[in-house]
Amino acid sequence: MSLRSDVTCALAEWIVDCDLEKIPAEVQREGVRTFVNWLGCAVGGASHETVDRALAAVTPFSGQPTSTVLGRGEKLDALHAALLNGITSHVLDYDDTHLKTIIHPAGPVASALMAVAETRPVSGREFLNALIVGVEVECRIGNSVYPHHYDRGWHITGTAGVFGAAAAVGRLLGLNVQQMTWALGIAATQSSGFREMFGTMCKSFHPGRAAQNGALAAYLAQANFDSSEQSIEAPRGFANVMSDKQDYREILGGLGESWEACLNSYKPFACGIVIHPTIDGCIQLREELGDNVGKISRVELVAHPLVLELTGKTEPKTGLEGKFSVFHSAAAALLRGDGSPTAFTDEAVTDPELMAMRRKVEVTTDKACHEASVTITVTLEGGERLEKHIERAIGSLEKPLTNEQIDTKFRGQAVLVIGEAACEALLAQAWTLPEMASVGKLAATSLPR
Amino acid sequence: MSLRSDVTCALAEWIVDCDLEKIPAEVQREGVRTFVNWLGCAVGGASHETVDRALAAVTPFSGQPTSTVLGRGEKLDALHAALLNGITSHVLDYDDTHLKTIIHPAGPVASALMAVAETRPVSGREFLNALIVGVEVECRIGNSVYPHHYDRGWHITGTAGVFGAAAAVGRLLGLNVQQMTWALGIAATQSSGFREMFGTMCKSFHPGRAAQNGALAAYLAQANFDSSEQSIEAPRGFANVMSDKQDYREILGGLGESWEACLNSYKPFACGIVIHPTIDGCIQLREELGDNVGKISRVELVAHPLVLELTGKTEPKTGLEGKFSVFHSAAAALLRGDGSPTAFTDEAVTDPELMAMRRKVEVTTDKACHEASVTITVTLEGGERLEKHIERAIGSLEKPLTNEQIDTKFRGQAVLVIGEAACEALLAQAWTLPEMASVGKLAATSLPR
Repeated sequence: MSLRSDVTCALAEWIVDCDLEKIPAEVQREGVRTFVNWLGCAVGGASHETVDRALAAVTPFSGQPTSTVLGRGEKLDALHAALLNGITSHVLDYDDTHLKTIIHPAGPVASALMAVAETRPVSGREFLNALIVGVEVECRIGNSVYPHHYDRGWHITGTAGVFGAAAAVGRLLGLNVQQMTWALGIAATQSSGFREMFGTMCKSFHPGRAAQNGALAAYLAQANFDSSEQSIEAPRGFANVMSDKQDYREILGGLGESWEACLNSYKPFACGIVIHPTIDGCIQLREELGDNVGKISRVELVAHPLVLELTGKTEPKTGLEGKFSVFHSAAAALLRGDGSPTAFTDEAVTDPELMAMRRKVEVTTDKACHEASVTITVTLEGGERLEKHIERAIGSLEKPLTNEQIDTKFRGQAVLVIGEAACEALLAQAWTLPEMASVGKLAATSLPR
Repeated sequence: MSLRSDVTCALAEWIVDCDLEKIPAEVQREGVRTFVNWLGCAVGGASHETVDRALAAVTPFSGQPTSTVLGRGEKLDALHAALLNGITSHVLDYDDTHLKTIIHPAGPVASALMAVAETRPVSGREFLNALIVGVEVECRIGNSVYPHHYDRGWHITGTAGVFGAAAAVGRLLGLNVQQMTWALGIAATQSSGFREMFGTMCKSFHPGRAAQNGALAAYLAQANFDSSEQSIEAPRGFANVMSDKQDYREILGGLGESWEACLNSYKPFACGIVIHPTIDGCIQLREELGDNVGKISRVELVAHPLVLELTGKTEPKTGLEGKFSVFHSAAAALLRGDGSPTAFTDEAVTDPELMAMRRKVEVTTDKACHEASVTITVTLEGGERLEKHIERAIGSLEKPLTNEQIDTKFRGQAVLVIGEAACEALLAQAWTLPEMASVGKLAATSLPR
């Protein structure tokens, strides 16, 4: 554990100093992929009832309607738009993942940036710069406390994400180092969100609030609203209060040299990441089984204990709960070959055939099995057995989604919400992020035609 | 530790069910005192620069200007007004205290209620009812985790206050039990605020955000935005994630029979409560010493270790920091007989005479000394020594402020901000809370004339 007492100040200095030319080309490319994937998810989740309800509640309190709820017609003030876009981008559990911490990095950061980018001219380069810096900050802070912080019950996308949003918006506002230090402090003291909320509307509320609260922190700091200057490392600051582990080398070590923002991954399936190897394997087994899928009598999984801890719901009642059921997910992959949002609707989890299949799934936990691996054994009625080992699922760092697969994913969710024409126009524009003169204008393209 | 799994649901049921006729007369009387004291503090803090800066930052994002920043001219939407009034009421560290938990109960609850009461007709009886229920909820939740939660570094006024605000606003909105359970959950998952922020503008930001976030939780729940139904007691819920102690009997035991809301106390001095015995004693010593005050060569305090832990700043540089300096506080009490807001200005902490006196103050800690007691020994230049033991300071539960002393305190701060005429009109109206037809109308009376 580092004893240095200037972690927050040193980080703030780096944030202010890190212009785009200091960011390697491959990190910039990953930043664009992060942006495109986030945008598809934000549009894809826009018609979810979680979003309808949040909008119904906050619209009466919205200020000047400068900023767009992507994928929908409503406009809100920038802080509320940050909240709503953070919700939409995560509500399908289909977004991006920093696998070392299970942070979903883009939700808090990009949602805040896009809302602010509709209030002032922000070029694609400025946006990309702020996005990468914000993602780097939240992932490094996450690394410094993971896994102890997560194990205690904190939803790290919310708790670390608020720092990323503050850093990113702080860059757009041109905060100086003193103000950036305060912004990190105001963000820190709003850090919140329990894992207990998984499976409820509050899960996606967390990245939404992280975006909104981080942006607020930056605006307050701009007005010289002060805070502690040691909010991360102080004895009663973030790391000590919210975690049993504090490794500040994870925050400051190799800053600007090695890049967590380059380690982002993009979910091929619309659910908890620990189920992905199971879905990948079950879809492969379905192809191998052909008509014999109907004869499955038993499905045995051997997986890391975390899989059951996070996704052990045996009888999900809603689509949202289905995302946290490895049993349902295996059933949908075997019977429908589906891991996309349509596999996690209320209809799907109450479908009698899927319900019958999920009850045939048994999970054995084994700590020796890697969290990203699974072994699946299917037994047919006649006693025949097929085994499939997935060492790493598609979408993992070892098997990253190609740009074309990101396109497919984007279309697979956005077309359902805004139609094909708008989807194609938005997708084409999204990849041109670094050349855009004003990113805020993209929001209009995200609306249904 | 209770193992019952329905703490949140049972609490929500009680909140919905607890009409005013079920609240004993003496609890209602204390509720009115809580309200009057809070109102004086909200007006008294309204001109602080912390408020100016917060207003500068959030005004561009404010929605319909329905609700008043008390003691000032600005109007904001109800959620932002809740934030601002929560800040003003706590910024001078002069508000109320639930001594068992060091929660400042009114800030989160009354600030949210008053902002909402300007958006819809709320009678004095409804307001008082919601205020008492909100205070009861936050203090009981605080009791269930105190002191472990506080010792870990959480600013309990923020972390527990958000539940009180949600419960109180939830009552005004007429939430049913299901919605109230969700409101508590949405509140829980926003619970935040570090003690590290003491001495900065973020300290008063905590009750402000608790008011705003609690109100938001109630509005979201009204729109059927759901959450966990076990947000307090679940393994990854509030009590387990944020504390090493969880005693749910403190929440549900004697609910509606014994009243934490009746144990509220009102600060006679505008600073951290653990310094109050020292100020009380030093003011008494000043009277006894007369002209000999100028001959003090040494001041020795024997106090509980918490006094130094919370208020050990030896060289405060700002008025805010002065509130967390037992050294400065003793000096101001001895030299000026002052523990009111004027003792904690930037001028006061940089006054050469006060600086010289505070350097003569020495503190010895003794765990055997009660947190609410102190022994002060003053040595004069000639070697003469005077000792003063304060078992309990004025303002404590054993020596509560009378209604007349609450009036004096109200005037002492509010006159400075809104002038005498407005102050007297507001104070007179405030005591009539239970008879008011529409509490929101009070806000107009709070403005400078």
